[in-house]
Amino acid sequence: MHTRRDFLQKITYSAMAFPLLAATRQSDLFHFNKEPYDGPVLRVAIMGLGGYGTRVARAMEACKKAKLVGLISGTPAKIKDWRSKYQIPEKNCYNYENFDELKDNPDIDAVYVITPNALHHDQVIRAAKAGKHVICEKPMGLNAQEGEEMIRACNEANVKLLVGYRMHFEPNTLEVVHMREKGDFGKIHFFQGQCGFRIGDPNQWRLDKALAGGGSLVDIGIYAINGARYMVGEEPIWVAAQETKTDPVKFREGVDETILFQLGFPRGAVASCLSTYNMNHLDRFFLNGEKGFAEMQPSTGYGPIEGRTHKGKLTQPHVTHQTLQMEEMASIILQGKKSVIPVDGEEGLKDLKIIDAIYKSCKSGDKLNLNL
Amino acid sequence: MHTRRDFLQKITYSAMAFPLLAATRQSDLFHFNKEPYDGPVLRVAIMGLGGYGTRVARAMEACKKAKLVGLISGTPAKIKDWRSKYQIPEKNCYNYENFDELKDNPDIDAVYVITPNALHHDQVIRAAKAGKHVICEKPMGLNAQEGEEMIRACNEANVKLLVGYRMHFEPNTLEVVHMREKGDFGKIHFFQGQCGFRIGDPNQWRLDKALAGGGSLVDIGIYAINGARYMVGEEPIWVAAQETKTDPVKFREGVDETILFQLGFPRGAVASCLSTYNMNHLDRFFLNGEKGFAEMQPSTGYGPIEGRTHKGKLTQPHVTHQTLQMEEMASIILQGKKSVIPVDGEEGLKDLKIIDAIYKSCKSGDKLNLNL
Repeated sequence: MHTRRDFLQKITYSAMAFPLLAATRQSDLFHFNKEPYDGPVLRVAIMGLGGYGTRVARAMEACKKAKLVGLISGTPAKIKDWRSKYQIPEKNCYNYENFDELKDNPDIDAVYVITPNALHHDQVIRAAKAGKHVICEKPMGLNAQEGEEMIRACNEANVKLLVGYRMHFEPNTLEVVHMREKGDFGKIHFFQGQCGFRIGDPNQWRLDKALAGGGSLVDIGIYAINGARYMVGEEPIWVAAQETKTDPVKFREGVDETILFQLGFPRGAVASCLSTYNMNHLDRFFLNGEKGFAEMQPSTGYGPIEGRTHKGKLTQPHVTHQTLQMEEMASIILQGKKSVIPVDGEEGLKDLKIIDAIYKSCKSGDKLNLNL
Repeated sequence: MHTRRDFLQKITYSAMAFPLLAATRQSDLFHFNKEPYDGPVLRVAIMGLGGYGTRVARAMEACKKAKLVGLISGTPAKIKDWRSKYQIPEKNCYNYENFDELKDNPDIDAVYVITPNALHHDQVIRAAKAGKHVICEKPMGLNAQEGEEMIRACNEANVKLLVGYRMHFEPNTLEVVHMREKGDFGKIHFFQGQCGFRIGDPNQWRLDKALAGGGSLVDIGIYAINGARYMVGEEPIWVAAQETKTDPVKFREGVDETILFQLGFPRGAVASCLSTYNMNHLDRFFLNGEKGFAEMQPSTGYGPIEGRTHKGKLTQPHVTHQTLQMEEMASIILQGKKSVIPVDGEEGLKDLKIIDAIYKSCKSGDKLNLNL
């Protein structure tokens, strides 16, 4: 744990060293210290009270700009537990049949959809039609077509759509992005993202094609996809991908176990990435440029992100990713704040277009052009 | 520097811990300590007195089983310098026109060909026809067809053909190979090899297609190719590759600057590799299995090879790679010793077949099957 004093010192240093990030850092400071906040608060309903929903709710306890006020679940027992834990009024609780009635509830501003991937598309569109802003856990949908429909529905309903990208606010990640922006690495040549873990319970929804829509790629490989984009700072123009499967019992048809994929960028940089549900000892980002490098390991886990560059160790303080994410998303939704790395529906759609192309390339064996 | 006592202690430890490597370690011990050696000595002529030839000659000063006794060069001034430095008799010196006369010289056993890549094929065949064993610096030739012709010529001449693979004898490398062989990593899932450096002088032969036959891949990427093979311990069955070029002035047509390539293995392991002449901060091997991992960085440089596994740091002593290589190659040629990782012409040919496929895949964008 960092003391407030430590934190302030680091913040002061960062704000001086990295003016571009100062806004984000100032808001971190605002939330994580004990000063009172009397600005607007985003009133959030969580849809899907599973493992990750639980993590988000716990993280939100430390938020000042966002507050958990509503629940959507198909399991009455979960609603009961959460209501008592978070003092949620009964009138703010819904199930998957009746949550369209959110449109008549003026006490909820936004819905955070944290359900299995295959449900995102319909649920996000319904929440939007109920007039609520939507934060959708990644992957935003199963494919680019779903993503486009979701963006259109949110635009038509005049609500904001954000994707639950927590790394996009992580301080060490932003420090590396800022170093790249100000030229510390020189021209970028290479990014490597190795994302994965050995998945447990073979009966979980993540290994069910109907609910997950895929395997490791949509769940964990997506960190390497958007990591490549924000680390290189360009949009890829080609992709190639190769799949391997060593356990077809655990990883059934349509559920990828391990995929290698490569991306090419307009100025010649390339990315080499690994997505897997079958290996530990990974979670590494490596960015290499003409003048220097950044290495992050762990790079996307929930715990502290650690790493170094040619200039030394990354020293930004650890904050609970989901707390920071929800604070920042509240500012984006309520105050029109712009984040350093975008987290809107268009951003989610770009990742989905790349995912579509990766799966296509795995099947055909061809290198494919991308047009994001 | 290690003292002899340190070295002996480490050797004793290794020999106990890794019986398979004991033979190699015993011979290391034999050479690097001060005990007398009165067995057979391989009398070597170096062909090509450039930068790497100079390095090999210097390393051979510490050899007991191999001795530099002859020179082949097109530059009389170099011959003069080397003769005086290494006390080489005039009768053991040749140029590129007359070295076929080696057949009449009973005082030279083997020729180490250390010339630009495009010359290897003809020079190796001529040395073989002169009845000399041949060590050919990597890449053995420009393509698999050349490799096959070289192997045939050496077989017909009844001489041995070895490829100058120095890493194949490096103690930490062998320790990782041995750990894999005895199952310490469990089933192997993944290998990563990132090999490259930012090349200097744009006028050197390595950047001349006519002499180099290619670019980074044949020179430095080849370490990732054979590294993948000996680390995974299988022969790849498919390959895909992608090229990028950011500086077409320095890296002209046919001279690759940066290539990503991927290999698939029979039991489902995959390798993801980078070959480049345009980046520093690389030189990393990473082997990942069901039960553990090995990470080596630097993994193929001349200096000490460093790394760690899930069991701790790699602690084999550093030895000058080329010294150890030449000692071991002397034993292979003179005494029929078998190395832990093969270094014969067939081994070089496999790498050339993969190189052919990588270049082909870069052009077509297709994933290709391999049959080694």
